[in-house]
Amino acid sequence: MFAEIITVGDELLIGQTVDTNSAWLGSALNQHGIRIKKRCAVADDAHEIRQALDAAFARVDLVLMTGGLGPTKDDITKKVLCDYYACGEREDTEVLALLERYFRDRGRVMLEINRGQAVLPAACETLMNLRGTAPGMWFDRDGKVLISMPGVPYEMQYIMEHGGFPRIRERFRSTPVTHRTLTVINIAESLLSKHLETFEAALPKGFKLAYLPNLNLIRLRISTGSERRANDEAALDTAFHALQEACREWMVAAEDTTPPEVTARLLLQKKLQLATAESCTGGNLAHTYTLIPGVSATYRGSVVAYANDIKKLLLGVNPADIEAYGAVSEPVAKAMALAVCQKLGTDCSISTTGIAGPDGGTAEKPVGTVFIAAALNSKVHSERFRFFGTRDQIIQRSTWTGFHLLNRLLESEA
Amino acid sequence: MFAEIITVGDELLIGQTVDTNSAWLGSALNQHGIRIKKRCAVADDAHEIRQALDAAFARVDLVLMTGGLGPTKDDITKKVLCDYYACGEREDTEVLALLERYFRDRGRVMLEINRGQAVLPAACETLMNLRGTAPGMWFDRDGKVLISMPGVPYEMQYIMEHGGFPRIRERFRSTPVTHRTLTVINIAESLLSKHLETFEAALPKGFKLAYLPNLNLIRLRISTGSERRANDEAALDTAFHALQEACREWMVAAEDTTPPEVTARLLLQKKLQLATAESCTGGNLAHTYTLIPGVSATYRGSVVAYANDIKKLLLGVNPADIEAYGAVSEPVAKAMALAVCQKLGTDCSISTTGIAGPDGGTAEKPVGTVFIAAALNSKVHSERFRFFGTRDQIIQRSTWTGFHLLNRLLESEA
Repeated sequence: MFAEIITVGDELLIGQTVDTNSAWLGSALNQHGIRIKKRCAVADDAHEIRQALDAAFARVDLVLMTGGLGPTKDDITKKVLCDYYACGEREDTEVLALLERYFRDRGRVMLEINRGQAVLPAACETLMNLRGTAPGMWFDRDGKVLISMPGVPYEMQYIMEHGGFPRIRERFRSTPVTHRTLTVINIAESLLSKHLETFEAALPKGFKLAYLPNLNLIRLRISTGSERRANDEAALDTAFHALQEACREWMVAAEDTTPPEVTARLLLQKKLQLATAESCTGGNLAHTYTLIPGVSATYRGSVVAYANDIKKLLLGVNPADIEAYGAVSEPVAKAMALAVCQKLGTDCSISTTGIAGPDGGTAEKPVGTVFIAAALNSKVHSERFRFFGTRDQIIQRSTWTGFHLLNRLLESEA
Repeated sequence: MFAEIITVGDELLIGQTVDTNSAWLGSALNQHGIRIKKRCAVADDAHEIRQALDAAFARVDLVLMTGGLGPTKDDITKKVLCDYYACGEREDTEVLALLERYFRDRGRVMLEINRGQAVLPAACETLMNLRGTAPGMWFDRDGKVLISMPGVPYEMQYIMEHGGFPRIRERFRSTPVTHRTLTVINIAESLLSKHLETFEAALPKGFKLAYLPNLNLIRLRISTGSERRANDEAALDTAFHALQEACREWMVAAEDTTPPEVTARLLLQKKLQLATAESCTGGNLAHTYTLIPGVSATYRGSVVAYANDIKKLLLGVNPADIEAYGAVSEPVAKAMALAVCQKLGTDCSISTTGIAGPDGGTAEKPVGTVFIAAALNSKVHSERFRFFGTRDQIIQRSTWTGFHLLNRLLESEA
């Protein structure tokens, strides 16, 4: 089954806003066995919106539209839809009650313009939005369904998850594509695909293997085709098991995840505490880890030793080591990891020292050279890496690799 | 003048890739006085691509297309364009030489499949790509121009900046829209727009004021209309000056920037050094600052004191203060800022302590309560803030605010 996406809003066309909704919807629909045939971005203009709707409904039975539902006068989608479905307006009392509570909670006065958000085209059913003030709308006419939603990503996602997808599953009896995902790190996509040639060739008919790269992480997703067969689940499990075996060397986890998320799970399970000591990642180990909600109990802190003497000053790294091997070296990475464990009284740690660029590289240690160490109790493991890309890419690749090294240590102690 | 964008690639439709190219192109074209009328994403499918080209050229004279130019067999754009322009192929010797150097530099063997990237439709002129292996193409027929480029953002940007825009300016004699931008912080868009009502009403005819919000930052851009008049530049300067006066209270800088970028410039100018002491921002002050290339000389490091006792242990914050006021308090924020300056031997510092959520809020200090302090020499200034949004939004808003507080201190010492 196919669907199309229409995004509405001048801000998308003049480049004020990057459209992340389309990727989220494309991926979520794909997991329901629905493929996006085409997507269009149009201006806040009645004629353009109508034309886009007509064109999309000429091709598919399901259209998802985002944007143009704010309270200001630029936002005309609701009026256009009343017109398109030749219907009047109705005030939705449930939405109105929600709006009243929303403004009361924030100590703000509800203006007439806000109350207007409870007024919807009479032809639609309401898809409740508990994350904002503009509800979603479900139109179903002549066998064609339109879902119209606000453009704010986390409101749109709420509406789809709580109203949109349940209704789509019922209305179109869509069969979710069954799939299994694993995540690998630090292997080039082309080399991995060569390595997996035999595996891919042996996959059951209809099964697909997708590569979803993101810097030095690749998610590998095997899915059954759109035609379900009775033994698909068992065949999928067998194939997924074989894929894990083939990827063992680079595997982060047998799921769609990132190394710091695996670290958080392992540390919570094992009731261990982490500290970090960062040079070239400049605080990104700490930042990435503390973005994960609920990790407080597992994390004590970080020393970002950006200037060289801070490595001595705060961590007590031996100046002789820095003198002999350089600040960007394996002995210094190891010393940082062990020192921060001791200093902050933690069970384990990650440290980084390297050259993120764009300047500072040498023939012996070019830009992208990074030494990363992970320590667990008094055991310390370190590796030298060479990452490519821009400064922020080198920092992010180093960060993910640091958590991955620690995960390997934590798993080996299982 | 109007243009359209067509993005090609299955990965965009199934949500593997977020399309950032369209926003970049929309914004860059807008500054050339060219507005995007519509944009579409289509699959790697010859019929879909042809149909999208026909539809776009029926509406506008300039179409920008990205994607579908890789070396693998999925990427069919070049073949479709040979067909569309009814032309054969030619091998571009300049591109071939570039490819040979590209692979030699990386110590990789150039395969036949790579050599194919130098083969282009005979009807196009080449737009060189010095950042990758797929060149851009410029087609000009029947008064209509098509630019086809690879989908990798920094390759596409190179091609537009070095080949695309210079040719567009010449071919369409487009007049860049003249504009001035400033950046403000921590003022709601609706309140600011109310505050600027009189200013906006007094703008010369044709002038426009645009609000470009990004979390707690808003860029304000005044531009002359598309019809140029002789005294536009002078009128724009006058209006921009008035806008700065009106926004003084919230102004980050009279340019399109962020608070940490302003900090970097001020510290380089004044030859001062910074340290940071972070609790709720969890390393993001350090990370955000060290993402800026060339700041090494101005930054010494950060103490991320995530667990409470680390504030005592690494910074020497008086436990009595934490006991009396709580770790999330103004006295602790101030003590952290002063202590990290002293400990790391810097001229100035920023500190944060707060509740980023989603848990941990109380009636007195709800989620989003953040105390931020900035110190310069022995002077310390702090403020209590209440930020809304998700955990990562609260962290980012706190981070930008921290640099802004320090900038105010640095500027007052001018």
